[in-house]
Amino acid sequence: MNVKDLRLSGRKNHKENTIVKAKNVLFGSEKIVLIGGPCAVESEKQVEEIAKGVHGVSVYRGGSFKPRTSPYSFLGLEKEGIQILKKISEEHKIPFVTEITKIEDLDYFIENVDIIQIGARDMQNFELLKAVGRTKKPVLLKRGFGNTIEELLLSSEYILKEGNPNVILCERGIRTFENSERFTLDIGAISIIKRYSHLPVIVDPSHASGDPFYIESLSLAAIAAGADGLMIEIHNDPANALSDKDQALTIEQYNKLVEKIAPVAKAIGRSV
Amino acid sequence: MNVKDLRLSGRKNHKENTIVKAKNVLFGSEKIVLIGGPCAVESEKQVEEIAKGVHGVSVYRGGSFKPRTSPYSFLGLEKEGIQILKKISEEHKIPFVTEITKIEDLDYFIENVDIIQIGARDMQNFELLKAVGRTKKPVLLKRGFGNTIEELLLSSEYILKEGNPNVILCERGIRTFENSERFTLDIGAISIIKRYSHLPVIVDPSHASGDPFYIESLSLAAIAAGADGLMIEIHNDPANALSDKDQALTIEQYNKLVEKIAPVAKAIGRSV
Amino acid sequence: MNVKDLRLSGRKNHKENTIVKAKNVLFGSEKIVLIGGPCAVESEKQVEEIAKGVHGVSVYRGGSFKPRTSPYSFLGLEKEGIQILKKISEEHKIPFVTEITKIEDLDYFIENVDIIQIGARDMQNFELLKAVGRTKKPVLLKRGFGNTIEELLLSSEYILKEGNPNVILCERGIRTFENSERFTLDIGAISIIKRYSHLPVIVDPSHASGDPFYIESLSLAAIAAGADGLMIEIHNDPANALSDKDQALTIEQYNKLVEKIAPVAKAIGRSV
Amino acid sequence: MNVKDLRLSGRKNHKENTIVKAKNVLFGSEKIVLIGGPCAVESEKQVEEIAKGVHGVSVYRGGSFKPRTSPYSFLGLEKEGIQILKKISEEHKIPFVTEITKIEDLDYFIENVDIIQIGARDMQNFELLKAVGRTKKPVLLKRGFGNTIEELLLSSEYILKEGNPNVILCERGIRTFENSERFTLDIGAISIIKRYSHLPVIVDPSHASGDPFYIESLSLAAIAAGADGLMIEIHNDPANALSDKDQALTIEQYNKLVEKIAPVAKAIGRSV
Repeated sequence: MNVKDLRLSGRKNHKENTIVKAKNVLFGSEKIVLIGGPCAVESEKQVEEIAKGVHGVSVYRGGSFKPRTSPYSFLGLEKEGIQILKKISEEHKIPFVTEITKIEDLDYFIENVDIIQIGARDMQNFELLKAVGRTKKPVLLKRGFGNTIEELLLSSEYILKEGNPNVILCERGIRTFENSERFTLDIGAISIIKRYSHLPVIVDPSHASGDPFYIESLSLAAIAAGADGLMIEIHNDPANALSDKDQALTIEQYNKLVEKIAPVAKAIGRSV
Repeated sequence: MNVKDLRLSGRKNHKENTIVKAKNVLFGSEKIVLIGGPCAVESEKQVEEIAKGVHGVSVYRGGSFKPRTSPYSFLGLEKEGIQILKKISEEHKIPFVTEITKIEDLDYFIENVDIIQIGARDMQNFELLKAVGRTKKPVLLKRGFGNTIEELLLSSEYILKEGNPNVILCERGIRTFENSERFTLDIGAISIIKRYSHLPVIVDPSHASGDPFYIESLSLAAIAAGADGLMIEIHNDPANALSDKDQALTIEQYNKLVEKIAPVAKAIGRSV
Repeated sequence: MNVKDLRLSGRKNHKENTIVKAKNVLFGSEKIVLIGGPCAVESEKQVEEIAKGVHGVSVYRGGSFKPRTSPYSFLGLEKEGIQILKKISEEHKIPFVTEITKIEDLDYFIENVDIIQIGARDMQNFELLKAVGRTKKPVLLKRGFGNTIEELLLSSEYILKEGNPNVILCERGIRTFENSERFTLDIGAISIIKRYSHLPVIVDPSHASGDPFYIESLSLAAIAAGADGLMIEIHNDPANALSDKDQALTIEQYNKLVEKIAPVAKAIGRSV
Repeated sequence: MNVKDLRLSGRKNHKENTIVKAKNVLFGSEKIVLIGGPCAVESEKQVEEIAKGVHGVSVYRGGSFKPRTSPYSFLGLEKEGIQILKKISEEHKIPFVTEITKIEDLDYFIENVDIIQIGARDMQNFELLKAVGRTKKPVLLKRGFGNTIEELLLSSEYILKEGNPNVILCERGIRTFENSERFTLDIGAISIIKRYSHLPVIVDPSHASGDPFYIESLSLAAIAAGADGLMIEIHNDPANALSDKDQALTIEQYNKLVEKIAPVAKAIGRSV
């Protein structure tokens, strides 16, 4: 671990855990943060249905500017999708997170979005990191699937160095030879990050596994391992989702999961 | 997943979870099995000290025929070490597990050992698998660090096919590009194995991480993810261990860990 | 392979190999293209010394906007470095390639640079891909170290789809568990790319290995495997380089290498 | 690299390259050794047809004791297959290599086989390594697909330490996230091995790629990179092979390949 360059993200000069505040939500406190919503925002009706149906969600998620491997995939509703998220977020008094993909959208994000997500593919897009570092918005920085934990922390350093201390890290699975799941959740990343950094860290079991069957097991493991939150894809109709089809939990599956998370959180002295 | 060839290890013809019995210990029951002991048996005094000091251990472990990457490393006390384990196991009425490395030792293992371990490097040593398959001894089959879960299940099939139904699987970390820990614990393996197989599965966080700092986080994660047990290296003097130096927990660290495992087990409806 | 979405990069509608022209240099023709120069442009003296010393280089390289894992590393001379490259390029009548890191520099690159490089960390920076796709400049697209070949081809599709057919692909090593070298050169990538795509492909053995000792072996292998070119780091004083210290070949080592490349190229019916 | 433990395999006490002799064939000399034959011996007719059809093969290969991932796959003709290989080998005055899987067959191998292969799955079967180390037979030691080069060299050390200096190493592809081919050929392994060890090293492009399409490119690359030989699967009827179906070259494809290998070998000062 290149501890020397973790000047702001490392423990050396910052022993206490950082708590990042997004409206009424605290990342890194005793209370575990549950982020839920569809992979991609598809319509107001879709987001509203999910928002009404789910219990225990503290932050909504939904992709609207979607970075996609193929240019022929569904690329998101862009600003329209963000307005949908914003409207429902305000109605339910629950903040939301959505991904940014280019610097020129930053002013729009500052004005409209509660938490700005940097996606896995942009973890080393240093110009974008510096740009969000010049705001005070909470930033959810996802680990690249081909990147080490050291690189994740050095990328957070780019944001902190520009003056924005509000960084939340996210483990979402890495690429390995094992192919039973889409990626391999690196559960060890949680305690490694906690050892070297004071920043809060959450886990995204949906992208890690790509299969609803594994979400419960991975979610409980993440909480027990010390994660400060979970980000879970939920869809009102997973089989017809426009993005990451069949990866999301149904609303009912999600609500059952929350009931199982609560006692595990309690067992390690936390709550949901 | 090559479900078709999982004729005996798969769920298709065997819906119920298998419970493997080793003396008074059940693998795969509601009660989580804690296996503890040194990487390598070094002396009777060492094993006795550990055995007296630890709480909550249901099965002792200790390497005596040690497969080592380099021929110039400490290779174990061989039969002498097994006699030490056997003596202390009988005194404390706690069964023990130790690794076999060649077929010619099998009769000796059948006579003296409670649970036979097949190490990660031998997971595809098919002749050895067939040989232990012709006994009725419980077999602890560790996943190779370069092997898929499908391959692990197909290796268990070799043992089952010869007539031995007493197979316990073990996830112990795989090789990836991440190098903060020795290996990357594949926490997803637990639910993947549970989905496709009825065999019990335990987790070895000591070999996965190679660093005592991470054992607690990985152990709690494994229990929450649904593992049926843990195998943890414990040493009375880790800094002077003859094998995997500084990887083991001290007796005190281990005992503190057990106190943390209990509530997590309870939270998911199990006990230790 | 997602052949369906390789609408423009794939072989299906474009059987012939594409030749990309950068000034007087052709990528994908019978003649193998040798790209050489320092990792980072440090001074006019440095670039001039290298340019004067090397034989057989068809394209100069040099980083000036440097994406670096840590924000505390040398980040390049930016526009000043590009002016140095441009000056020496014009003097020697040899085009040059340098990396772009943000869209706002694009106009400057269009005006000053011969070949625009998209670095490994930006391979899935889709906004940057689209931006260079709207120019007619040759683009050197490097494979991400955590990305599949399918993803590399789909990224090239982003550029082609915007109207720029001048894409050159580059294999530069991927992340694996093997750690004797910095990365593992995926030599198989060359024939896989040639099978599915008509685009030219070159190899960067310097970043793959991170050690001058291995450059000769990897370079000859790449040529024999069918690569259309090589990109090699050369430094007048490797031990004092400001970036990727000790990775570059000396001018003398490079010139010896070229003498070895020539007969291998000839053996497979090509030239340098 | 753990150079200290490479006491016999390393360069420190053994500067010169080792040449291993198997009957009339030299591994590690100026002449590149071509090993060819079917994945599995199926019948005398099959082996005879291949032996009669191929040009330039110096050593025959054929699996007869087959270690297979699934116990329900074709496991080989065992001793019958070896007798077929032996007969045809004697008729054509060409030695052959075949894989051993258990110590109890060793006397039979010593009596009947020219070169004993240790397969990838047995690279760390240390008891088997020690056993073949106590003979003087040439041993072809394949790298495990999940093993580092350091581990490969340390495994060769087990053989050398027992007194057998006749070890030939073989790179055959490693497991990575890239899935266009079955494995990823680690072309860099050749020069890494040559740097640290005096032992000859060959390459198996058939198992690395699992697809005849890529064999030519990988074979030429291996020769150019400095490999001392190639081991290629050839079948008289690949579509109906009992093992690794459709992976082998046809006799005709193989003969065309040899014509392309010759000039590349010559270009680097060697011959076939």
